[in-house]
Amino acid sequence: MTNRNLLIVSTSKVHGSGYMEYIQDQVAEHFKNCKKVTFIPFARPGGISHDEYTKIASDAFDKIGVEVRGAHTFESAREAVNWADGLFTGGGNTFVLLTQLYKLGFIEHIQNAVESGKPYMGSSAGSNITGTTISTTNDMPIMYPPTFDALQLVPFNINPHYLDPDPGSKHMGETRETRIKEFHAYNDQPVVGLREGSALIVKGNDIKIFGDHSVRIFEKGKQPYEIESTENLNFLVQ
Amino acid sequence: MTNRNLLIVSTSKVHGSGYMEYIQDQVAEHFKNCKKVTFIPFARPGGISHDEYTKIASDAFDKIGVEVRGAHTFESAREAVNWADGLFTGGGNTFVLLTQLYKLGFIEHIQNAVESGKPYMGSSAGSNITGTTISTTNDMPIMYPPTFDALQLVPFNINPHYLDPDPGSKHMGETRETRIKEFHAYNDQPVVGLREGSALIVKGNDIKIFGDHSVRIFEKGKQPYEIESTENLNFLVQ
Repeated sequence: MTNRNLLIVSTSKVHGSGYMEYIQDQVAEHFKNCKKVTFIPFARPGGISHDEYTKIASDAFDKIGVEVRGAHTFESAREAVNWADGLFTGGGNTFVLLTQLYKLGFIEHIQNAVESGKPYMGSSAGSNITGTTISTTNDMPIMYPPTFDALQLVPFNINPHYLDPDPGSKHMGETRETRIKEFHAYNDQPVVGLREGSALIVKGNDIKIFGDHSVRIFEKGKQPYEIESTENLNFLVQ
Repeated sequence: MTNRNLLIVSTSKVHGSGYMEYIQDQVAEHFKNCKKVTFIPFARPGGISHDEYTKIASDAFDKIGVEVRGAHTFESAREAVNWADGLFTGGGNTFVLLTQLYKLGFIEHIQNAVESGKPYMGSSAGSNITGTTISTTNDMPIMYPPTFDALQLVPFNINPHYLDPDPGSKHMGETRETRIKEFHAYNDQPVVGLREGSALIVKGNDIKIFGDHSVRIFEKGKQPYEIESTENLNFLVQ
């Protein structure tokens, strides 16, 4: 994946701002050489239709002069990926998204497009699937995918909407940090916890951090640690 | 499952109390005719050993004069289930638990034991697996099970550690209620949201509610609603 050009976004909205608004300059930069972007709506947040979801993405891309078409409107996965200069996978439920990508034959075509250098952006569930597996999603497993293996565009897992433990909580459910620790009882790859408002900008083996927050890195057998947004994550791909 | 005798517990601990302490009278009542209980430790919370986890359960059952042995110490699933007068599945990760139950051949033996009238208690992940599927777990999918189909001891799903939406939250992740609504975009069975401190007492087709909280019921195509702890849930099995 030496040609990869990825924008891996934790969330499409931060509190008090519109769809992709807080990150729109970075989105414009990411797709600056693109006239046409295929939007992959299969995660279907809140059960809205693929058309309705594509309209939301399309409205956001109108502002930067990019035409958007929904992946569901093409005859095949190949056609949906080939039509565009860039790809954007929206958030929703990661299990639904991955199941549909396998069922409709998208996996290989997206991997090939990224390998060939086409810009890819994912938000939330669309970010989760860029990792090795979807095993660090926060979503409910409402659909059974044929595997948890994801697009593997990067050699680590993503945990979007990363939430720091709340020291005042009386809830006995596990904290996010505990869950990721348990992930490492059975899995080896590092996990990048992306707080809301954060994103990864991946160009080949160079990984920059977008936003003001540090990101939290979880490696098997180590204490979790922070990488400031002014630093890079190149060590994760070397 | 006309002979079923189940205690489906949301959480093993409530804030400020020890393991199973808040519900110990109900546990004693549930296992009153039992001398030996097999503890199923496979959910492995926090990656502790099966022996360590069994010790925690065993200490709690010592107080009510019941001998506890870990399911992992038997030669086979059949032997583990047949040895005991009752079964208790502890919490942890639901995906790990279900994967192990299938791999080690426990599913059918537990179902047969429950059908024959042996008392079963589950807490958290151990409650989740009593439902139709594990698709309403809150856990992270750190292991890939052969199916999401669960023990199907009751004809609905459980959502343990049910959390009401926090109106003050600025976090953009989905609320539990939104997640369960999305579950119903793809699944038909009702979901019982069990708040911490709540449990279901199931005797054949009679379902009582333990604890002070009401439970939240989610049915496909309906607004979620509350059933007070003084009422019953018999309508879910009729």
